Amino acid sequence: MHADATGSDAPAPESAVPPAGPAGPVRPKRATRLRPLGLNEVELAASGALGDWQHRNRVATLPHCTARVVSSGALGNLERIAAGVAQGAPHVGMVFSDSDVYKTLEAIAWEHVRGTDAPVEEFATRATRAITDAQRADGYLNSWFQGQRPDLAWKDLRWGHELYCAGHLLQASVAAQRTGALPGLAAVAERLVEHLLETFSSADGDGRLIGICGHPEIETALVEHYRQTGDERALGLATHQIDLRGRADVELPTTDLPGGRPFSLSYFLHYLPVRQRRSATGHAVRELYLQAGVVDVATETGDEDLLTASETIWEDLYAAKTYLTGAHGSRHRDESIGDPYELPSDRAYAETCAAIASFQWNWRLLLATGRARYADAMERVLWNTVAGATSRDGESFFYSNTLHLRTSHEDEEDAPRHRLDWYECACCPPNLARLVASVQSYLATSDDSGLQLHLPFDGQVRTRLAGSPVSMDIRTDHPWDGDTQIIMEDCAPTAPWTLSVRIPRWSEPGRFRVVLNGEAVEPTLQHDYLTLSRTWRAGDRVQFANAMPLRLVAAHPRVDAVRGCVALERGPLVYCVESDDLPPGAAIEDLVIDDAPVLECSTKVPAGLEDYVKVAISASVRLVSSTSQPLYGEHLPTPARGETAEVRLIPYFARAHRPSAAMRVWLPTAPLQRAVAAMTEESSTQGTPLAATSGGSGCVDQEGV
Amino acid sequence: MHADATGSDAPAPESAVPPAGPAGPVRPKRATRLRPLGLNEVELAASGALGDWQHRNRVATLPHCTARVVSSGALGNLERIAAGVAQGAPHVGMVFSDSDVYKTLEAIAWEHVRGTDAPVEEFATRATRAITDAQRADGYLNSWFQGQRPDLAWKDLRWGHELYCAGHLLQASVAAQRTGALPGLAAVAERLVEHLLETFSSADGDGRLIGICGHPEIETALVEHYRQTGDERALGLATHQIDLRGRADVELPTTDLPGGRPFSLSYFLHYLPVRQRRSATGHAVRELYLQAGVVDVATETGDEDLLTASETIWEDLYAAKTYLTGAHGSRHRDESIGDPYELPSDRAYAETCAAIASFQWNWRLLLATGRARYADAMERVLWNTVAGATSRDGESFFYSNTLHLRTSHEDEEDAPRHRLDWYECACCPPNLARLVASVQSYLATSDDSGLQLHLPFDGQVRTRLAGSPVSMDIRTDHPWDGDTQIIMEDCAPTAPWTLSVRIPRWSEPGRFRVVLNGEAVEPTLQHDYLTLSRTWRAGDRVQFANAMPLRLVAAHPRVDAVRGCVALERGPLVYCVESDDLPPGAAIEDLVIDDAPVLECSTKVPAGLEDYVKVAISASVRLVSSTSQPLYGEHLPTPARGETAEVRLIPYFARAHRPSAAMRVWLPTAPLQRAVAAMTEESSTQGTPLAATSGGSGCVDQEGV
Repeated sequence: MHADATGSDAPAPESAVPPAGPAGPVRPKRATRLRPLGLNEVELAASGALGDWQHRNRVATLPHCTARVVSSGALGNLERIAAGVAQGAPHVGMVFSDSDVYKTLEAIAWEHVRGTDAPVEEFATRATRAITDAQRADGYLNSWFQGQRPDLAWKDLRWGHELYCAGHLLQASVAAQRTGALPGLAAVAERLVEHLLETFSSADGDGRLIGICGHPEIETALVEHYRQTGDERALGLATHQIDLRGRADVELPTTDLPGGRPFSLSYFLHYLPVRQRRSATGHAVRELYLQAGVVDVATETGDEDLLTASETIWEDLYAAKTYLTGAHGSRHRDESIGDPYELPSDRAYAETCAAIASFQWNWRLLLATGRARYADAMERVLWNTVAGATSRDGESFFYSNTLHLRTSHEDEEDAPRHRLDWYECACCPPNLARLVASVQSYLATSDDSGLQLHLPFDGQVRTRLAGSPVSMDIRTDHPWDGDTQIIMEDCAPTAPWTLSVRIPRWSEPGRFRVVLNGEAVEPTLQHDYLTLSRTWRAGDRVQFANAMPLRLVAAHPRVDAVRGCVALERGPLVYCVESDDLPPGAAIEDLVIDDAPVLECSTKVPAGLEDYVKVAISASVRLVSSTSQPLYGEHLPTPARGETAEVRLIPYFARAHRPSAAMRVWLPTAPLQRAVAAMTEESSTQGTPLAATSGGSGCVDQEGV
Repeated sequence: MHADATGSDAPAPESAVPPAGPAGPVRPKRATRLRPLGLNEVELAASGALGDWQHRNRVATLPHCTARVVSSGALGNLERIAAGVAQGAPHVGMVFSDSDVYKTLEAIAWEHVRGTDAPVEEFATRATRAITDAQRADGYLNSWFQGQRPDLAWKDLRWGHELYCAGHLLQASVAAQRTGALPGLAAVAERLVEHLLETFSSADGDGRLIGICGHPEIETALVEHYRQTGDERALGLATHQIDLRGRADVELPTTDLPGGRPFSLSYFLHYLPVRQRRSATGHAVRELYLQAGVVDVATETGDEDLLTASETIWEDLYAAKTYLTGAHGSRHRDESIGDPYELPSDRAYAETCAAIASFQWNWRLLLATGRARYADAMERVLWNTVAGATSRDGESFFYSNTLHLRTSHEDEEDAPRHRLDWYECACCPPNLARLVASVQSYLATSDDSGLQLHLPFDGQVRTRLAGSPVSMDIRTDHPWDGDTQIIMEDCAPTAPWTLSVRIPRWSEPGRFRVVLNGEAVEPTLQHDYLTLSRTWRAGDRVQFANAMPLRLVAAHPRVDAVRGCVALERGPLVYCVESDDLPPGAAIEDLVIDDAPVLECSTKVPAGLEDYVKVAISASVRLVSSTSQPLYGEHLPTPARGETAEVRLIPYFARAHRPSAAMRVWLPTAPLQRAVAAMTEESSTQGTPLAATSGGSGCVDQEGV
């Protein structure tokens, strides 16, 4: 275990001191409300759902990504530059294809602590060499601009994605440095940062280029680089990037780059300074990456106002612009967040990268504030949107995560029925790989009072509290079961400390039980955490028993798209109906559920999903054929009739593994409104005399005949 | 009147012979079920709503278009080519900007029969000269390709829009020839058609380029050119274009043109031959222009199977893919029609050009078949989407016609709160101008049995039936009133003939009265037309009295976007609520309407709209504040409470003339579902001990602690 990790025997952490062992993503230098544990201080058990997912990521997703980053040509773009191939040689794929390589390398670096297989290592060596050789002597690095239009370097900040790509290179380098992987990458990052510092303004009036990137990412990456290297100039550059954004006097120049489109400055989050904004808007991934960087800068500069600004935007986002699955982005056109309460199920864009970005942002807010709402948001998006983005074999992916797929849906790359094994714009798959490879870093924290478990997992924690080793086994069948059992294996601290376990938002008030060494105890509830303070000893066993009842959920009445519908949840999981589970011949469009349906959870899982789903939900529904009704007609609300049936719902994340895959998360409740009196069909009355009546024509004064 | 029209004294029409006078758009050469009247045979009275609209088009919209076609640079693009400016000089606007010029010229040509003002005539002369001089010696004509990339001519059929632009040039030329306007344009068109015939395959194996256009339009234009000139080669080329479309062996080549995007072949309607398709799909304007061409070819070649194919696609479109306002196109991303029942109100794309194209397609189907359903579709889209696309001053326009605008909608060119005075992609404004300038041609027809009035209008008909002059006054206050009065001014035919008046789909069965010369008569109902057959005499007066009650409309239960909502209609008009008409402080999002509300029509029209709207609707509603509710929570259906209020609805077409302009067509009915038990807000319980309960965790086997 931990064979490749570095520094796991480092001294115990003090307040504001990073924890021992290699750090995972996000290692604040300044004191935060909560401190992340080290990358190796949490280990997922292969028997748990999260550990199984991380294993799949390692043995399937990561090798798949390395192979596709090669076969798609993304690595080749860098290799051609590295080989000094003449300018103008073809570039394959998007202008930001380098970032596919960097994100894959970051995933490899995080996996490095568990050891990676030879083909993945070979890719890592090959890619690191290509990157190193491709970098220009002055530190500039971008295969598209170097190969296609070196004259336009830093001239199309709107669409060029150069700082975006640089950010992902820095993140890969940070991961590499923290885990001892990818030798050579840190040197590339150092040269790149020097180039950025020479090029871009870090303070008003320093005479350098005043510009920001159309796609945020560099901000959080520069802060992480600062955290890893201590180079305060990187933090200064990140801070100034945040300050420049939204300023009316800062241009976002563009050229005639292919793919550039006439989106507004709000798309680029450059319409108002972050500190002045009250709402989450624009391109979802851009906004969420930006906010991660905002919290990073606020954290490292101690800027409380900036932190508050990000929390204000969070409140707007989660009050009216978040899908039940935790996803964001209501529009396909510009991948944007959309208006408040504009949350269409069918055309949910809900991009996988936005889900990953929101997970990262919420983690930073959780560290900064200790507020449980951020952990709730993380759990929701992780177990629904992020978990569902990858197939159970780990080798195909959703880019967009719809909540409603019609029977007759027209399949397109933009909104496919099933996961695709790669995308023209391949940002999501390697993004999933890097998150899942480091997901154990996002589950637990410590502070001066003790240890906090935010997201349940099956595995082990081995850390130090007040300088002394603490080791515990955590056993849970999450997300299928609400109970968590903690067995203290080793506990050196002799003073009392507090074990805190988050009470998920989905818990039923009062249906929570804590048993310590066989005896029920009354823990304290603090800000949505159960806390148990005592002098812990090896052998202590504590059970947090949490009911996981089925929940019938409705949306705010302003969510027009799901008016008159309910959704089913259990624990952190949103459920859905798939057409594959309907009686033969029934269409998912005909399904109606009662306001108070008969619901049961069931371990009888649809065939083919047994190894992937432990708990299905059986629900009584009716199937009401509506095919004979016109598109519009007289409003005559009538109770829905139709055959009763029992359908089985599966977790949303497990959808789209079977042939037909028509799907609904939100189920219409009875009564349906029946539309009668056809308005577009031809009348069947033909050649019949018409009875003359005395009907007037309403309120307009009529002239005589 | 009619000073500039040509041929108004031509001989009387026979079956299959075009009617007398200058023809309007669509003049079939082969016999159709119904024959259009000539352009001058219907005249709109300035006192009627339609005549007023046409007047506004002439005095405001058309001059505005000519000015903006100049100031936007669209005309300049052609003028630079005409002046022989060196290749590579900048092109302004879209690759298809030439079509803005052509459509404006077409509008001028149709207006020519009523006479046009000097500035408009000056534009026409200037533009015709530019076009003439820009045309290459070999007949090729396209300012973008000639100026930017002559090497790519006919090489990017996917995005190049060259045939699309050529089609609009042909349509302008046809209008010019039919009205005697724009001397010189016909010669350009002849040369262009020769070039197309030399370039493109008209039959398998003729050795010429096998290719179709990514944006249909050339098909209908070539048929109109054939109708006008008799050049059967143009019909042959159009027929082959239709036959090639969707064939798997026909490529749709693309280059790296700016703006090209990775849309699928269904976007381009090139995924399946028209004859094999059962559904309307892809880019809405492309599909609808294509279908107009399909019916034109079917009509002129007598191809009944092809006509049936188009009617099959119509049935699919109108059964599940049409907005209440008659509009089409549910998606912004690719401007596509969308899946069946995917009809979001808020993100309705509902492009103005698609509405115009559907009007044109339905007219062709009406002529070919005589079926009233096509006239119903025309009336619905004309009085709602098309009428609402232009502001009441005639100088600003909607490109996209949403059915729902939220209070906090973020304004963008793609979906603005108010009409804009021009667009980067300016296809819609001149398209409106050319339709409205010729709208009188789309209202009435004749056949061997007599005359048919399809869409009510206030004005005159002067035509020949069985070779003899017939002249009648038509008086109606349509769309505000259902009555139509017809006064026979002159009626030379001595034999009986049939006057048919369409019974709109919105009519109430049985509430129809016909009074002939002061006495009620029982007319015959034939296929949704009231028919009155007799030997008509000058002085005969007939009144068709039709009630125009308010209608509460519901949508098919599969239209998820408006589940639980109703809309209000009166006559052909869809109504909407605007926030400007709510009590102070009330949000449109809080409005709830009863299943059976108190409704009254009212001539009390909101201030500022008195000259534009004759009938408002007053409705009893409730205003239910929901701001304190969480985004998602426990499903607890409860009746909506809240203050009662009376709101005034205005016709959809009259929307967005006041400041706030938040708007709904579909109004939620009570009960609202109240979502309680916050899922994202923090609990307020802090530091309280938690009662231990015995809640189990459901259906997963639990291991002992």
